[in-house]
Amino acid sequence: MSDNLQGAELLQFLQEHSPEEIKAALNNIHPADILDALEDYQGDAISLLSSLPNDVLASIIEEAEEEDKGELFDLFPINQKKEIISEMASDELVDLLETIDPDEATDLIESLDEEDAQDVKELMQYDSDTAGGIMATEFMAIQDDMTVRQILEYLQRHGDEAESLSYLYVLDASENLKGVVSLRDIVVNSFTATVTPLINPNVISVHPDLDQEEVARTFKKYGFASIPVVNDSNQMLGIITADDVLDIVVDESTEDIEKMAALAHNEGEYLETGVFGLARQRIFWLLFLMLSATFTGYIIQDFGEMLAGMVILTAFIPMLMNTGGNAGSQSAVLVIRGMALGEIAIKDYFTVVFKEIRVSLIVGLALAAVNFLRIWIFNSDPLLALTVSLALCFTIIISKAVGCTLPIIAHRFRIDPAIMAAPIITTIVDALSLIVYFNLAKAFYIRG
Amino acid sequence: MSDNLQGAELLQFLQEHSPEEIKAALNNIHPADILDALEDYQGDAISLLSSLPNDVLASIIEEAEEEDKGELFDLFPINQKKEIISEMASDELVDLLETIDPDEATDLIESLDEEDAQDVKELMQYDSDTAGGIMATEFMAIQDDMTVRQILEYLQRHGDEAESLSYLYVLDASENLKGVVSLRDIVVNSFTATVTPLINPNVISVHPDLDQEEVARTFKKYGFASIPVVNDSNQMLGIITADDVLDIVVDESTEDIEKMAALAHNEGEYLETGVFGLARQRIFWLLFLMLSATFTGYIIQDFGEMLAGMVILTAFIPMLMNTGGNAGSQSAVLVIRGMALGEIAIKDYFTVVFKEIRVSLIVGLALAAVNFLRIWIFNSDPLLALTVSLALCFTIIISKAVGCTLPIIAHRFRIDPAIMAAPIITTIVDALSLIVYFNLAKAFYIRG
Repeated sequence: MSDNLQGAELLQFLQEHSPEEIKAALNNIHPADILDALEDYQGDAISLLSSLPNDVLASIIEEAEEEDKGELFDLFPINQKKEIISEMASDELVDLLETIDPDEATDLIESLDEEDAQDVKELMQYDSDTAGGIMATEFMAIQDDMTVRQILEYLQRHGDEAESLSYLYVLDASENLKGVVSLRDIVVNSFTATVTPLINPNVISVHPDLDQEEVARTFKKYGFASIPVVNDSNQMLGIITADDVLDIVVDESTEDIEKMAALAHNEGEYLETGVFGLARQRIFWLLFLMLSATFTGYIIQDFGEMLAGMVILTAFIPMLMNTGGNAGSQSAVLVIRGMALGEIAIKDYFTVVFKEIRVSLIVGLALAAVNFLRIWIFNSDPLLALTVSLALCFTIIISKAVGCTLPIIAHRFRIDPAIMAAPIITTIVDALSLIVYFNLAKAFYIRG
Repeated sequence: MSDNLQGAELLQFLQEHSPEEIKAALNNIHPADILDALEDYQGDAISLLSSLPNDVLASIIEEAEEEDKGELFDLFPINQKKEIISEMASDELVDLLETIDPDEATDLIESLDEEDAQDVKELMQYDSDTAGGIMATEFMAIQDDMTVRQILEYLQRHGDEAESLSYLYVLDASENLKGVVSLRDIVVNSFTATVTPLINPNVISVHPDLDQEEVARTFKKYGFASIPVVNDSNQMLGIITADDVLDIVVDESTEDIEKMAALAHNEGEYLETGVFGLARQRIFWLLFLMLSATFTGYIIQDFGEMLAGMVILTAFIPMLMNTGGNAGSQSAVLVIRGMALGEIAIKDYFTVVFKEIRVSLIVGLALAAVNFLRIWIFNSDPLLALTVSLALCFTIIISKAVGCTLPIIAHRFRIDPAIMAAPIITTIVDALSLIVYFNLAKAFYIRG
């Protein structure tokens, strides 16, 4: 990082300078840094914020994490709230309004000018995880026969109104999207050039109902700075900008990782979440999995007599269960991530299972061989070595088949595949691997 | 997605039209879509590509996944290769050169004009996971006293040379970075305005040695379209653009998820990786964890006599081991992700452990209570219920303490914390939980 005003230095600056001096410097301080300084500030937040103009306060609230927006906003009296929201971009305003009291939100929307209020009401109709839920309505439209100079003059008058100027859009009379041109293409062409040949009529756009993960994939594929959102009749509704997408990608990955580790989703950073919040995030899945594991206990009880006579058989239970769990979760995680990145679809199911069975044969035979040698050498009991190794090989094949199947089934039934990761698969595989193991032992070892 | 030319339609277009017609249409077709069409194409790739101009071929290679770039590039004769690389951005060219034969890479670099060759050689010095390894050297510098009109005229002549025009940079005579101005601020101001008041001297920049994960966090925090890279003496070296960062975030998350599931990293998508490649990705960790699990077996053998007399004790082993593993991996994953996102640092260790112990008390007591009732009701043996539930509570506390400790220790010793997720923690926790359980059983249950 460089010598820009951050952290303690920024805090000191905000405390020691007059509102006028602060205002003069504010253009060059990023609101994310003010927000950071605020988090470290021990005193009353409002005393630090009171000297800031409303547009800067709007940016600071925009930068705040979802769960902090409402709290920050509530520091201000209702009249100032109305002024702050009038400075916010539509997508950010909707995010804020969704976190506060619905009655207050309705009041605040009424205070906006009619067009903005209409935009916000429409945006609030969309599911917050869809393209419609993350788009902003402030985009820049141009005529398809303007010259570069005319466009620049138009931007000088109206450019401030748009969320992003990276792309300018050409619409017809019914607001249908006809083409797009990048600001870059505008500024590298001479003032007298007309925009017509620069316009790309093959616009890549997304539908407002598209899931935000798919939106992120579209951004990743094309590398655009923003993407237009159009409805079924190709009418342009808004734009989504790349900076919002970066947040989405990080959040979605975090949610997937949490689900894979049997954690309920928790807004908010670890260090800022209370002990009861953290416990709540974990207890349901632990209870569910603990009770599921009782089935494995019943299987052991069923074979109790055999195990009582042969405690050496018990000694291999943890190794079999763990290897099965690990083998299964490897497959599950590869499939879950592949689906999250759009690399694996439901139609690929048979390809995946066929692949996993071949992989599990290679892996299973390799591990069984090592395991056979180990038991033979250390226990001098080739029959025991054979029994355990056969069970191991079957366990790995079953685990990988289950591991790749469950996430795809979940996806088919519109359940998040990430739920079907290590913990659930381990529980299922434990039971299956013990059944295989005990039956093999009964057939080969006890008899032998 | 919209009606733009993609997939089968695009493929048909490329096959059925003359090179001239294709060239005329190419400006409006995204290279990522050509690449997609190419992947679905059954015929000879070169026959489809031969009609495309070198700058488009350069873009297609830029869009290709790391592991496919070299193969695609190798379709062309050496003379065309030289022309293709002269069309590539420096950061993309370096990515390509790092995947091909080093001797050929050296030859190709020599064919570039002197300045470009120098840039590429310098970029290749940086570790590919650092800011220096992902930056491009083509940025746009301006004078701090130009008017908007002068800047626009300058961009008309030179704008094509830059990787991004989102920001223009002000450098002094020694190429030190003095300020930044966004293209947006340029175009919304009148032609006669001077740029001086628009320049932000508090530039947020990154050092070339900064890890790419940290670079991604800087982008996430500020939401910029690009960030300048400066060395220790504040000399400007290049820029990193947001579209590259989106790829990094996705790749880093995928790598972390793979590590957490005991998978070695594998370039390339699941469906495109062969069976042996997939097996290789899994076998090391499975073997390592299988052999580690033998310790748990020894513990069981040690308590063999007790278990032979009381098979009911064996029946609770899977439940205890699973719950311990799940509880531990919950903590580990929260800490691993928190560190990956920069929310948890090594200095927070004691805060984290203290928090985890309190959380584990709440969770442990809740689960133990449910478990106690379950065993009491179904086994009518309150002493057994007490023994197992006590062991469960201790197991959860130990698991969570181990789960949050190992990733932080790993991080301290510059090992990737993601390695310390579910599988390793499960193996350690299994052994610990059985020791606690068997000793409790010996002390309370067998005696009683």
